[in-house]
Amino acid sequence: MAEPFILINCKAFAEGMGNRGQLIAEAAETVMEESGVQIGMAPVYTEIHPISHHFRIPVFAQHIDGVAPGPFTGHVTAAAVRHAGAVGTLINHSERRLTLAGIEAGVKAARAAHLETVVCTNNDPTTAAAAALEPDYVAIEPPELIGSGISVCKADPEIIRRSVEAARRVNPKVKVLTGAGIQTGDCVRIALELGTSGVLLASSVVKAEDPAKVLRDLVSLVTVTRREG
Amino acid sequence: MAEPFILINCKAFAEGMGNRGQLIAEAAETVMEESGVQIGMAPVYTEIHPISHHFRIPVFAQHIDGVAPGPFTGHVTAAAVRHAGAVGTLINHSERRLTLAGIEAGVKAARAAHLETVVCTNNDPTTAAAAALEPDYVAIEPPELIGSGISVCKADPEIIRRSVEAARRVNPKVKVLTGAGIQTGDCVRIALELGTSGVLLASSVVKAEDPAKVLRDLVSLVTVTRREG
Amino acid sequence: MAEPFILINCKAFAEGMGNRGQLIAEAAETVMEESGVQIGMAPVYTEIHPISHHFRIPVFAQHIDGVAPGPFTGHVTAAAVRHAGAVGTLINHSERRLTLAGIEAGVKAARAAHLETVVCTNNDPTTAAAAALEPDYVAIEPPELIGSGISVCKADPEIIRRSVEAARRVNPKVKVLTGAGIQTGDCVRIALELGTSGVLLASSVVKAEDPAKVLRDLVSLVTVTRREG
Amino acid sequence: MAEPFILINCKAFAEGMGNRGQLIAEAAETVMEESGVQIGMAPVYTEIHPISHHFRIPVFAQHIDGVAPGPFTGHVTAAAVRHAGAVGTLINHSERRLTLAGIEAGVKAARAAHLETVVCTNNDPTTAAAAALEPDYVAIEPPELIGSGISVCKADPEIIRRSVEAARRVNPKVKVLTGAGIQTGDCVRIALELGTSGVLLASSVVKAEDPAKVLRDLVSLVTVTRREG
Repeated sequence: MAEPFILINCKAFAEGMGNRGQLIAEAAETVMEESGVQIGMAPVYTEIHPISHHFRIPVFAQHIDGVAPGPFTGHVTAAAVRHAGAVGTLINHSERRLTLAGIEAGVKAARAAHLETVVCTNNDPTTAAAAALEPDYVAIEPPELIGSGISVCKADPEIIRRSVEAARRVNPKVKVLTGAGIQTGDCVRIALELGTSGVLLASSVVKAEDPAKVLRDLVSLVTVTRREG
Repeated sequence: MAEPFILINCKAFAEGMGNRGQLIAEAAETVMEESGVQIGMAPVYTEIHPISHHFRIPVFAQHIDGVAPGPFTGHVTAAAVRHAGAVGTLINHSERRLTLAGIEAGVKAARAAHLETVVCTNNDPTTAAAAALEPDYVAIEPPELIGSGISVCKADPEIIRRSVEAARRVNPKVKVLTGAGIQTGDCVRIALELGTSGVLLASSVVKAEDPAKVLRDLVSLVTVTRREG
Repeated sequence: MAEPFILINCKAFAEGMGNRGQLIAEAAETVMEESGVQIGMAPVYTEIHPISHHFRIPVFAQHIDGVAPGPFTGHVTAAAVRHAGAVGTLINHSERRLTLAGIEAGVKAARAAHLETVVCTNNDPTTAAAAALEPDYVAIEPPELIGSGISVCKADPEIIRRSVEAARRVNPKVKVLTGAGIQTGDCVRIALELGTSGVLLASSVVKAEDPAKVLRDLVSLVTVTRREG
Repeated sequence: MAEPFILINCKAFAEGMGNRGQLIAEAAETVMEESGVQIGMAPVYTEIHPISHHFRIPVFAQHIDGVAPGPFTGHVTAAAVRHAGAVGTLINHSERRLTLAGIEAGVKAARAAHLETVVCTNNDPTTAAAAALEPDYVAIEPPELIGSGISVCKADPEIIRRSVEAARRVNPKVKVLTGAGIQTGDCVRIALELGTSGVLLASSVVKAEDPAKVLRDLVSLVTVTRREG
């Protein structure tokens, strides 16, 4: 993804599915075009296909299991979400934790299926560990701030700084996203100043009365420095 | 579902996705129309929507999490699969085991979303326990026979008989499906004679060169006794 | 166990280990002798051996895995806890949930090792399901009340009543324990009046300044009706 | 631990408990004294206390949960195993996998309780990730070789070499152990030549008719280079 990258995690919120999900996708598409900032969306599995086919935004899965196609009832393979139109995936979100071996297998399976990977972590040591697995992104989200409405950028900028350093030390190529409590353009600005490449957020956009308005605010203080992906 | 009921679990087999998945769905639709036997299909999550919209067959999810819509990244809600077109769901498949509390929450969530429930179990005591949760079906699948190519109907008919009895004793309304190693019309006939209401199967159809041919064989010895839903 | 049965779950509380654990065991032994009420204790695994060897109280494990002895690093077998001196075990406590297949395997393994089984559940349908597995006891503990200091006997007696009925319907031989928020003799009295055979409790005894005093209060309104053992 | 370090994982083998466990501990003590090679033992939780009190060998837990003392029924805290006499612990064995966050919490909890930590991994990327968490040891065990009787040193020395390099790159202070299929002094020699600090093994000692004989063979080609602690 080009920098900065804003990734909207719809979780299993009612407000992120069906018509509401489409509204969010449309807002993301519009604000991405207006601003040049990459805005991705991670809907529920069943909506990866419709969202990715109707909107020009990068669509992510919320999770994959690092298994090859085979006898794995109820599992989510990289191949399946790629086939449905996803271009990337979250792995190890705090609401869907995996074993270390599972994260590694997931990153590997995603890479083989040409999916970008965002591995979620909870502090700086786990960020360093995740970076060692060579995903595209590590998203650091202090669990106690997820869904709290308190921005990690303000509550605990040091954990972001330490995480960026920890990730760089292990793997200078990995990019870091800031997660937990991101709500405003000011949060995004701080996240970028702390050395991260964007943000991972959920309720502030998904549950917004006017998602486009929130997204416009989120990108308002951002200077798009390069455009690739 | 009307009796007998044949439910095809696509698992995460490559042969059950994409074009191949559509071919299986088409075969199911055709043989269901020819024979009057209900034939359902449980594709991967991402294909619930296309399969249920393009084919007149009952579509099942392979798993749901018994959580209400909310902050549950990577989880599969009853609402999401229902919205995508599913009319039922597997719960607690041996490849996706849940806690007892999770099974109960899944059955309850499915019922609230008007999904039929098939709770998978591994022996007669767990069948009795599952029956106590009042799902529509319990599918008994001895784990050692899943994917073995050895039909439970021939290898261990007693476990089916005991499971039917155990389920009835706890809850006379619950229907039982026979799973594990089902491959031929003869297996289906025995499954029905043992008192079960149909079969749950996977590789014998999903990996078949000609799924329609296998399905025709599966229904060949069946007399359709009633037709409901 | 004779009725009524009071089972003290030490959890991983610091106040339930080491010298403090021995103090609780001593209090249990004393009050059991004074009152004739069976009082059991479930310490951490590492203290099953010393507690069971130094005190004349029934010692329970807090959990077992339903695996046979074998290559299961970090697992807790029925054989190991029996060998250490336990006479029973909790299974499926809300802080250590198991799959349905795991609970069934645990009950079976415990029975084979001559351990009494207390399967924990969270509502009346799961109580019915657990009863189908034929443990000695089912302990119903509404999760929202565990550790709350609010007694289930006062907050939600109906869930106890429904659970007793549900269990009896499925398996008249299973005994039910009342859990969550039990603190006083009055709670114990109500628990018995609701048809349960005793209580499962933790912090009110484990964290008490004077465990013997709390235990004396707990048994104060109880009439010992029979003594087996 | 001084180098080299041989750690015997008793798993839940019947042959590693009770009198047999004591026999193994005695053999470890004897061969450690004879050879100067550190030989540790990880018995089941319930035998940490007796083994550590009766034998002068370093005793390890097979697993800990990275939780602080508190309401965690059935969990194994660092404090509990330390109190029972353990001086270290395995974490994330392939038979007891943890989430990444769980491994990190376990390492931190162990360190706080003055326990040495051996984090188990399955390949070189996970070894690098584990090294980032700063345990004392990472033990690399290709899962397909565990319990196979095929020594990783012979079947796949490259995975050991790559793991040592990966670990060093991330954290030069972490020591690596070789696991999976270790059976003879030759395996131990190769393991040390590949740059690891010792071996983690199980069945070849635990199930041996004469554990002391196997241990003597294991240390037979080793030159003890330093002795610390």
